Amino acid sequence: MGGSSFGKNYTVTTFGESHGRALGAIVDGCPPGIFLDEEKIQAFLDRRKPGKDPYSTPRKESDRCEIISGVFEGQTTGTPICVVVGNEDQVSGDYSDIKDVFRPGHADFTYHAKYGIRDYRGGGRSSGRETIGRVIGGAIARAYLDQKGVGFTTYVEEIGDIKTDPGNEDFDFIEKNPLCMADKNAYEKAAKYLDELKEKKDSSGGVIKCVISNVPPGLGDPVFDKLDARLAYAIMSIGAVKGFEIGDGFLAAKSTGSKNNDPFYRDKDGRIRTKTNHSGGILGGISTGEDIVLRVGVKPTPSIGTNQQTVDKHGNETSITIHGRHDPVIAPRACVVVESMAAITLVDFYVRSLS
Amino acid sequence: MGGSSFGKNYTVTTFGESHGRALGAIVDGCPPGIFLDEEKIQAFLDRRKPGKDPYSTPRKESDRCEIISGVFEGQTTGTPICVVVGNEDQVSGDYSDIKDVFRPGHADFTYHAKYGIRDYRGGGRSSGRETIGRVIGGAIARAYLDQKGVGFTTYVEEIGDIKTDPGNEDFDFIEKNPLCMADKNAYEKAAKYLDELKEKKDSSGGVIKCVISNVPPGLGDPVFDKLDARLAYAIMSIGAVKGFEIGDGFLAAKSTGSKNNDPFYRDKDGRIRTKTNHSGGILGGISTGEDIVLRVGVKPTPSIGTNQQTVDKHGNETSITIHGRHDPVIAPRACVVVESMAAITLVDFYVRSLS
Amino acid sequence: MGGSSFGKNYTVTTFGESHGRALGAIVDGCPPGIFLDEEKIQAFLDRRKPGKDPYSTPRKESDRCEIISGVFEGQTTGTPICVVVGNEDQVSGDYSDIKDVFRPGHADFTYHAKYGIRDYRGGGRSSGRETIGRVIGGAIARAYLDQKGVGFTTYVEEIGDIKTDPGNEDFDFIEKNPLCMADKNAYEKAAKYLDELKEKKDSSGGVIKCVISNVPPGLGDPVFDKLDARLAYAIMSIGAVKGFEIGDGFLAAKSTGSKNNDPFYRDKDGRIRTKTNHSGGILGGISTGEDIVLRVGVKPTPSIGTNQQTVDKHGNETSITIHGRHDPVIAPRACVVVESMAAITLVDFYVRSLS
Amino acid sequence: MGGSSFGKNYTVTTFGESHGRALGAIVDGCPPGIFLDEEKIQAFLDRRKPGKDPYSTPRKESDRCEIISGVFEGQTTGTPICVVVGNEDQVSGDYSDIKDVFRPGHADFTYHAKYGIRDYRGGGRSSGRETIGRVIGGAIARAYLDQKGVGFTTYVEEIGDIKTDPGNEDFDFIEKNPLCMADKNAYEKAAKYLDELKEKKDSSGGVIKCVISNVPPGLGDPVFDKLDARLAYAIMSIGAVKGFEIGDGFLAAKSTGSKNNDPFYRDKDGRIRTKTNHSGGILGGISTGEDIVLRVGVKPTPSIGTNQQTVDKHGNETSITIHGRHDPVIAPRACVVVESMAAITLVDFYVRSLS
Repeated sequence: MGGSSFGKNYTVTTFGESHGRALGAIVDGCPPGIFLDEEKIQAFLDRRKPGKDPYSTPRKESDRCEIISGVFEGQTTGTPICVVVGNEDQVSGDYSDIKDVFRPGHADFTYHAKYGIRDYRGGGRSSGRETIGRVIGGAIARAYLDQKGVGFTTYVEEIGDIKTDPGNEDFDFIEKNPLCMADKNAYEKAAKYLDELKEKKDSSGGVIKCVISNVPPGLGDPVFDKLDARLAYAIMSIGAVKGFEIGDGFLAAKSTGSKNNDPFYRDKDGRIRTKTNHSGGILGGISTGEDIVLRVGVKPTPSIGTNQQTVDKHGNETSITIHGRHDPVIAPRACVVVESMAAITLVDFYVRSLS
Repeated sequence: MGGSSFGKNYTVTTFGESHGRALGAIVDGCPPGIFLDEEKIQAFLDRRKPGKDPYSTPRKESDRCEIISGVFEGQTTGTPICVVVGNEDQVSGDYSDIKDVFRPGHADFTYHAKYGIRDYRGGGRSSGRETIGRVIGGAIARAYLDQKGVGFTTYVEEIGDIKTDPGNEDFDFIEKNPLCMADKNAYEKAAKYLDELKEKKDSSGGVIKCVISNVPPGLGDPVFDKLDARLAYAIMSIGAVKGFEIGDGFLAAKSTGSKNNDPFYRDKDGRIRTKTNHSGGILGGISTGEDIVLRVGVKPTPSIGTNQQTVDKHGNETSITIHGRHDPVIAPRACVVVESMAAITLVDFYVRSLS
Repeated sequence: MGGSSFGKNYTVTTFGESHGRALGAIVDGCPPGIFLDEEKIQAFLDRRKPGKDPYSTPRKESDRCEIISGVFEGQTTGTPICVVVGNEDQVSGDYSDIKDVFRPGHADFTYHAKYGIRDYRGGGRSSGRETIGRVIGGAIARAYLDQKGVGFTTYVEEIGDIKTDPGNEDFDFIEKNPLCMADKNAYEKAAKYLDELKEKKDSSGGVIKCVISNVPPGLGDPVFDKLDARLAYAIMSIGAVKGFEIGDGFLAAKSTGSKNNDPFYRDKDGRIRTKTNHSGGILGGISTGEDIVLRVGVKPTPSIGTNQQTVDKHGNETSITIHGRHDPVIAPRACVVVESMAAITLVDFYVRSLS
Repeated sequence: MGGSSFGKNYTVTTFGESHGRALGAIVDGCPPGIFLDEEKIQAFLDRRKPGKDPYSTPRKESDRCEIISGVFEGQTTGTPICVVVGNEDQVSGDYSDIKDVFRPGHADFTYHAKYGIRDYRGGGRSSGRETIGRVIGGAIARAYLDQKGVGFTTYVEEIGDIKTDPGNEDFDFIEKNPLCMADKNAYEKAAKYLDELKEKKDSSGGVIKCVISNVPPGLGDPVFDKLDARLAYAIMSIGAVKGFEIGDGFLAAKSTGSKNNDPFYRDKDGRIRTKTNHSGGILGGISTGEDIVLRVGVKPTPSIGTNQQTVDKHGNETSITIHGRHDPVIAPRACVVVESMAAITLVDFYVRSLS
């Protein structure tokens, strides 16, 4: 049990169930004097909000956040920041179909096996709505990192077999398409592919790429708390994430030392840099100062409209057809969640002193 | 700073530098009454020992472990278990070539950037010898898990472009070849490939697969401390690891919900099982009772014999040729380290009560 | 920064400022299947509620709690329990007198020195209202401990020089007097003493005694996480607490080994017991099965009505007269807070497995 | 289980049993660039060494420490510092008298109740020799704090009923008497009292006072991780400690607000100070910049030579006479342990950044 807190010094604790009264997060350890208001957090929450396009579930939630504590006269005070998002769409619907039956690909069975009791309404705590707390923690982390000049570029690189064409990225396009892709051609193919899947009541997986710029050298701790290990921990904890790569990732396994090593040089400003960045901005678990580059594999939406074989909580074999409309792909809405978890991880290292 | 401890309730803290007096680990939180002696730990250490075959560095270390505390009359007592491995090969060699120069692909530069001071002898704390402490923690975790009936199968699945042929695995073969591969054909090709690379003073990456059997349903905590998130954290903290997958991993990103969801059924013993195991034995961060399957991407050995461009600690551009012989591939010796970190992660969940 | 979470496996995180929107707590790691509703928590909150008698501040707060998450159909689910108490009395009063001036005995100066910014309204985060979150965490811990049969008796043993007469305690009387004392004679003297102090706009300190019964042997971890060390940590973290004793406490310093050692015997049920309990139910940091007995020294209310010398945040010397009425003694209202922190500490050990 | 680590960012993990191969500690999170060698640590260890005077046990241990890792060319490197002290006096003596019998006042029974197995030789892990690891951690913390100018004065203030006469302290005298007292008259009375107790095979408790100077304002975190709460946690975890006070401690419970509040003023250097220091240098859990003053109640040595009633591990009532000579008082040798735990606690706050 437990496990709802992340971070050693900048700690995000989340709470809330899909159909409970509210969801939210407490951020403890945020430095004082960071400019913060509800609008800043809301901008991040809006990026994960459902119902804004044909590829996401039409649940009607305004998901308005409210800062309960820790901010005074527009600035953080160093005390815990509690932010809450109420559940408007909290109708006590008809859950008779999922109350006792384990949906394949969902956490229904494992929660039942672990706890013996679960809030089955909309998946309860295991719902994707749990990520609201992560995005709150991430938005506050971003407010801090913005003051340090750290930048993030996050987009969907692959959907099914459709890949971003390297060199064809237009990063301004990311916010202009509902799939958060950076390549217009790839987006159009992916949109078509998802339309077909929706027709078949099926869904697709995807790959998210996140590039973090302007991180200084020296962030991360050796051995277990390597920066890449903490990033992997943070991001693999997002529901539906099945794979994580830093830098060249699994491609490095196919490479050779002579190609994979990044030669050092001195740039015109006298800073030590690497000519290539196969390492993804991290060596020995500590940032090099180059862009931190990571890739995240996201599984297809498990809620699909076709009939699936399963068992109920009494152990009887049965089948289930999940009603309602669901996102045909999770990856686009997960971009802001990946970015949030990465930002939380970074701030957790920033707030530790070295002297 | 910090970061040398892993685990919340079963905690492994490691110490030691490559050429210091000794390396080792303290395991705190191990339950009492586990049968343990130096021989059991030694068996795991011998799996990572260098110099035993043509594909690993010929450093002459017997790497004999000594239990300093926590074991009494052949059993653990519940108090911290300290195990130490002395450094025999601790000659104060000539380090003038690496003292001030940053080796590409190594942590020399980032340690310097972070700390301003570093033990440059053999990489100091960032050396692969640091994994001795991990293997000690893993060996003790395995002693516990053996009593629970949990089994591990770990092998090198890929080296460069050479892949294990699914269906052609012979798991008894793993211990019989120096590359820890499970497919004899793949092994022979890989051995030839590595011979060629050694000739060119180059090195190769590889992929490790680890399958953990007989884990009961219910292990892992929701949200941030998901079992897969903790496994990723543990394993991505191993030096040279660049990618992590649970179950189908990045392949799930290419799949569809209808294929990727694992249907539930009831087996002949009345247990709830899944027909397929795309999820890799984890749903919502909690074990399902199916095999836990994970894959790990390992980069090529950064120590290569060719001349490489770099800078020194004064910022001057220079070049370096790393002398001595080095493993042409890291993955085989890393198998026992991956297995150790997975075992440590599992035990950390086992020792938390649910009632 | 940070520091708003307590507990390793049963973790209470609190948030909120005296005059912010709300205060509350998240409890993570509470086992599933504990019967819990708002009424149970409210009963504990009502014990710390101000304005119910002549010896506490007349702030009008109903302090109604609301469970936001973690409880489903009347039982805990194992997921984080968020409980919130709104601030009704959140009038934007006139704080011009305390905005820039450091009240003696309060945290105004130290918060300013640490953070450079502080919510000065009613003391912000350093207000006694912060204990609302502790009592929420304690009430939930008590719901768990009640199911285990653990009992608590907590009362004010001393106020100023007035002491409870040992042997004259009537534990039913505790709830019947506003000073939470167990000795009617002592209560009457203390009430008179406090009336005199109120007249002089002054305040008194006090001592709280807490006896915990029916804790089994074996709770607590050796070395740093001794049960008494964790209890001291928990209880010394309550504002205004200046001293902590376990068992005979400082009296043991005056005693001899032959008197202080508790001889073991076997009781009629075959259980190993001690004849005396100078140790306060803990040996080597682990519970013996005897009553856990602790005493807590609480300083006088720092908010007093007389004029006090101080400085303002610009460093100018000035004086302050604190207006409004304040509790002439903190100890009675702190009883439920001490009990809460003790309960939280105990549950944190209960939920760790030993096998 | 667990519990052998202390500190969040400056973390001390100890290991070792009284009669095992060695005892020691790993310090993780120590900043780089601190000058450290074995001599510095040895000076602290020598302060707790037994056998140096008539009031401590004559066990012959040189207790020589060895730095195993984390120090390079005379400076800390930021990596974990492992320090080991071998057990020379590790004769496999005759333990038949204590093997199965629970010594009153010791942890024999509680360890047995918790673990079912224990290293009974000399108390195993629960021995006073466990404090060697604490002193190692404290000596390293002191090396850091010395560079910050923080000073410690620690002495035995009371033994039995004999008290230091306030105003009669001579702090140079502390190191010159085996009882670590600061008042020569009190020392002479105490020495006589202890001689009498030794005659009777009995022992005495005592009180330790520790004053820490030159700590800047702003150290400590609000709510649970208050500086005084962490100090209480650290110091109450020392075996035999039964009481803890900060500032006026339990005397504050007898005081009034008008006397107990410390008025602020501005000193000639423009710093904000308090005229009195009843608070002991901490307000709201954060340091004020005044001396941190704490008092510690230590129980009498439980190992006494008279016959005591007890039970054995089979539940049979029996009696025990503890042979060998033992310290007639623990407090003097505990001074360096109290100081060590206080230093560890302070550094743990120093190494957290605020910006």
